[in-house]
Amino acid sequence: MNFKDYIATVEGFPKEGISFKDITPLLQDKDAFKNACVEIAKFAKELGATVIVGPESRGFIFGCPVAYELNIGFVPIRKPGKLPRETVQVAYELEYGSNILCMHKDAVKEGDKVVIIDDLLATGGTIEASIKLIEQLGAKVVGAAFIIELDDLCGRERLKNIPVKTLINY
Amino acid sequence: MNFKDYIATVEGFPKEGISFKDITPLLQDKDAFKNACVEIAKFAKELGATVIVGPESRGFIFGCPVAYELNIGFVPIRKPGKLPRETVQVAYELEYGSNILCMHKDAVKEGDKVVIIDDLLATGGTIEASIKLIEQLGAKVVGAAFIIELDDLCGRERLKNIPVKTLINY
Repeated sequence: MNFKDYIATVEGFPKEGISFKDITPLLQDKDAFKNACVEIAKFAKELGATVIVGPESRGFIFGCPVAYELNIGFVPIRKPGKLPRETVQVAYELEYGSNILCMHKDAVKEGDKVVIIDDLLATGGTIEASIKLIEQLGAKVVGAAFIIELDDLCGRERLKNIPVKTLINY
Repeated sequence: MNFKDYIATVEGFPKEGISFKDITPLLQDKDAFKNACVEIAKFAKELGATVIVGPESRGFIFGCPVAYELNIGFVPIRKPGKLPRETVQVAYELEYGSNILCMHKDAVKEGDKVVIIDDLLATGGTIEASIKLIEQLGAKVVGAAFIIELDDLCGRERLKNIPVKTLINY
């Protein structure tokens, strides 16, 4: 299956100069959605994942079915003000401005083997921040998986020795 | 399995007077998460669902595994500015202020049998708006499922003749 057939490229969204990769046609196609989740679940299983972590909110779309398939837990990473109990936080720089990500303090622990799942690997900033959160709590990131990778932005280089799986490259 | 054991009640979040129901302990428990999705998938299957619709962003957490399990498509409902292609929109009133929900115009079509999935049925405002979006595009809502229902807020009454499934009642 060529997953790229199910991605819509929308020029100028959310602003001029951006060539946005829209995953919604893939989600709407029952077999494309199923097969994408199956491929990522296989990768996470091979790495011995004991928990899946997904950043808000498109990380939920693929991370939750993979956790479900592997019968392991799912942990959301969210923006400030969304998680009601005690959190750890990491701030990181974006191209314009900055962002903060939060995770509940009891979300992962020493001994957990985490695979992070998100829809898109661009500069890798979100994933680098996610790794910091997970490692702060003593867990180990054993892999990261994405539907789409934007090769020119070299996000993979920021993930150092962590195995990375992507289904579609641009 | 008593799903209520996996919900944390956080008083005063996000503001004074609110008794917030936190689903993250349920997500972190592999069997509670699996079983919750299985129960909702069973309900959606009995209704003959051909597509699952989930509102941003906690609707993604349960809606995507259910779509995956049933091998059907998933459609996200999102806040303005998130969906890149042509959308339909509905505005609705909240207790304080108002909200707008969007769905891609090609997301569902006549003949589709939709089950809407979200984490929480409170006043029913989000679900009522979601139904409007889906019906605008000619599809039929055949059911709605939630992890938690807040009985005192009577959200179920706004869903009229649509079958509703909830796993936990407060």
